[in-house]
Amino acid sequence: MKISAIITLKKDVLDPQGKVIHKTLDGMGFKDVNGVRQGKYFEIDVNENDPTKARGLVEDMCKKLLTNLVIENYKIIETQ
Amino acid sequence: MKISAIITLKKDVLDPQGKVIHKTLDGMGFKDVNGVRQGKYFEIDVNENDPTKARGLVEDMCKKLLTNLVIENYKIIETQ
Repeated sequence: MKISAIITLKKDVLDPQGKVIHKTLDGMGFKDVNGVRQGKYFEIDVNENDPTKARGLVEDMCKKLLTNLVIENYKIIETQ
Repeated sequence: MKISAIITLKKDVLDPQGKVIHKTLDGMGFKDVNGVRQGKYFEIDVNENDPTKARGLVEDMCKKLLTNLVIENYKIIETQ
C-alpha cells in the first residue's frame, strides 16, 4: 500500500525558499498571502497491507533517513 | 487560513530522486519498498477565511506558478 510522508521545517526555522515564493506570488498580483512554507513530500509504496504496520515502516524511514529531526517535522498520511 | 498544496510528478514521468531514495532505503535494510516518488509541498497562509475561496486562490497559484502542468499534478488539501 502507498503511504505518504510530508516533511516540513519546524516553526522557528527560517525558510528562504518559502520567502522567495511568497515574494514571487506577491509580484504576480497575489496580494492576500500571509506566508509560504515549503516542504518535501514522499509517496512510498510499501509491500505491506496492514495500514498500521505500513505506517510504522514509513515512520521508521522518516526517522532514519528522510527527516532531519533537528530542524524538520514529519507527518504521515495514507494515500488513497 | 492555511491551505496546503502537494505537487507530484505525473505517473509516467521518471523520478530519479525517488529512485535514489529507494536504493538508499534498500541499502539501509528496508527491503519491503516497491517504489518511492518524491514531490513538493507548500503550506500557504492566505488572508481569506472562506475555505472555497481560499482553495480557489491556491489552485490559481498552483496553475500559474507552483506547478509545471506538463509534467506535474497538484492536489490541494486543507491544513488544520
